[in-house]
Amino acid sequence: MSHSVEYIIQHISPVDTSLAGAAQAHLDNLTKPRGSLGRLEELALRLYCIQGGDTPLAADPARIYTIAGDHGVAAEGVSPFPQEVTRQMVLNFLSNGAGINVLCNTVGCEQFVVDAGSCGGAYPEHPRLIQRKIHPGTASIAQGPAMTAEQCRQALQLGIDLAGMAREAGCRTVGTGEMGISNTTPSTALYCAYLGLDPAGITGPGAGITPDLVKHKTDIIRRALAVNAGAVQSQNAVDILAALGGYEIAALTGLILGAAYHRMAVLVDGFISTAAWTAAWKICPAVSDYSFFSHASAEAGHKTALRSMGIEPLHDLGLRLGEGTGAALTLFLLRSAAAIFNDMATFSSAGVATQSSC
Amino acid sequence: MSHSVEYIIQHISPVDTSLAGAAQAHLDNLTKPRGSLGRLEELALRLYCIQGGDTPLAADPARIYTIAGDHGVAAEGVSPFPQEVTRQMVLNFLSNGAGINVLCNTVGCEQFVVDAGSCGGAYPEHPRLIQRKIHPGTASIAQGPAMTAEQCRQALQLGIDLAGMAREAGCRTVGTGEMGISNTTPSTALYCAYLGLDPAGITGPGAGITPDLVKHKTDIIRRALAVNAGAVQSQNAVDILAALGGYEIAALTGLILGAAYHRMAVLVDGFISTAAWTAAWKICPAVSDYSFFSHASAEAGHKTALRSMGIEPLHDLGLRLGEGTGAALTLFLLRSAAAIFNDMATFSSAGVATQSSC
Repeated sequence: MSHSVEYIIQHISPVDTSLAGAAQAHLDNLTKPRGSLGRLEELALRLYCIQGGDTPLAADPARIYTIAGDHGVAAEGVSPFPQEVTRQMVLNFLSNGAGINVLCNTVGCEQFVVDAGSCGGAYPEHPRLIQRKIHPGTASIAQGPAMTAEQCRQALQLGIDLAGMAREAGCRTVGTGEMGISNTTPSTALYCAYLGLDPAGITGPGAGITPDLVKHKTDIIRRALAVNAGAVQSQNAVDILAALGGYEIAALTGLILGAAYHRMAVLVDGFISTAAWTAAWKICPAVSDYSFFSHASAEAGHKTALRSMGIEPLHDLGLRLGEGTGAALTLFLLRSAAAIFNDMATFSSAGVATQSSC
Repeated sequence: MSHSVEYIIQHISPVDTSLAGAAQAHLDNLTKPRGSLGRLEELALRLYCIQGGDTPLAADPARIYTIAGDHGVAAEGVSPFPQEVTRQMVLNFLSNGAGINVLCNTVGCEQFVVDAGSCGGAYPEHPRLIQRKIHPGTASIAQGPAMTAEQCRQALQLGIDLAGMAREAGCRTVGTGEMGISNTTPSTALYCAYLGLDPAGITGPGAGITPDLVKHKTDIIRRALAVNAGAVQSQNAVDILAALGGYEIAALTGLILGAAYHRMAVLVDGFISTAAWTAAWKICPAVSDYSFFSHASAEAGHKTALRSMGIEPLHDLGLRLGEGTGAALTLFLLRSAAAIFNDMATFSSAGVATQSSC
């Protein structure tokens, strides 16, 4: 049984940062110069706080949800791929042919595919497919709100349910992934609305449009912000998400909120996932404590958005595929950090002389 | 039976870059927007060329050599740790207590420990320990050359032998690691000599000395460059290595040369390993084709040195431990890249529509 959106939002707690001292003391006692494992130490310390000081630390089991949705704004010609590719890629995920399948297999992580709102009807049943279609595609954000308030609530609830399912399965970490042709467009609009950024500075080629079409896409995003000015000006995070988001994006927002509620680590993927995360953070700032930012996307604007929130991502590999691919790579770092914390010898146990105070 | 240093240097071949077109065509036919896996695609393409177009690509089996050596310059007070820590850490490596042990275990990679020149006598025998001590510690580079020409040749030969052993064991990848109290000092001196950099710009705190001692260390490096001015001015890469390097550093140089000869991928670790790599590159520029740069060290000067050689490392995680820890992390990326190349579906096999030409 899953909690409601309202209940979850009210019951997310920040981590107990008073635990950080004990974690740091342990890290400083391991056989290495202090701080010499850099961000791996930061990850271990944060995981220690998330897991309430229980040891050994655990990044696994982990699960990535790749959530699919379509977008009315695709009709405006903002992607080089036809809209039916969303559905085709869902089937590809289920056949293990996509990038996310290969990386989940390489890192050792389960993946579930979720239909939150792709166009067309139901899919054939599959053990790794969760069919919770709210509507076949959003309305175009260039014409009005993407979703009704009720549809957005349903998508948030879906994500919360997914977090609850992961928790019940014993997961310690969830990763965010998505598939939706044209979904860099609503994501860019969300960054503009939440962070006060201008579309001209952060609109990019997405899956690969020409510079002329990037200009067109920028105009579409500007129009979406104007058409939905009421929601934008309200600064109500859920209203903005309904107006400018998408089904997979709002479901990811719910997943992030639910994971924080259940005290799981969250591996935030790239451009679209970070837009969903920004919504979750605006709804409940304490989600920060549970979140790890996988990578800086090659999509223009991701670094700008991350920087404006003071976030330093863990990889910078020029990825711009989505699906959760960056999250899968980053699970390896989180697992490595946990293993360092759990398994390294201390100076005294290994008989190694400690650093002088010079 | 192993080849001589001279034979190896004469017989390293660049990769056949005419294979890149076929690799790129395959990558572009996988179900993802072109180029959207960023540097993973670059890694796959380079591995394809290294492996002569044979598929499936293989990053595994992989082996990391952690090579130990001591340094006469330690007497000048350039490290916060006493010199006996080199030996203590060798024993820690053999007891699986060090950072490199934990990360090799996490990524699934074997590690061998090599004594190239640590102080003190022989170690107890151990199945993962290779004892090839050339001399117990170098002479101080602040007083004269670190090694004689013959000692440096022996260290290069040791590394070449280690590469041959890895190849005989079926390894496709080797990683470089080291342990040696004070070894950021000779490494910094090598960067200065090979790349024409000034010690003041690139000398850092190593394992953790105070700013005052960094200034002292800078002076020591300046003195080392002056005392060994003959070698520096000769611009003979091996003479510079003998004058300013160390046993573990020269052995890593040999390992890199040998790995390139045997057409294995080389994961270059951090500050010290890159100094050894710079020597290998000056000796034989074709080693570039086989080399992957794991990370940007937190040690001041590493990014400067990498930038001056046009190298963009794969991680930037603030690591400064050495031992091969960055190489272990990067094996996961190389393995992921190989899996992407080998296992993703193509547009036609998955029935996914391709990108329009817009």
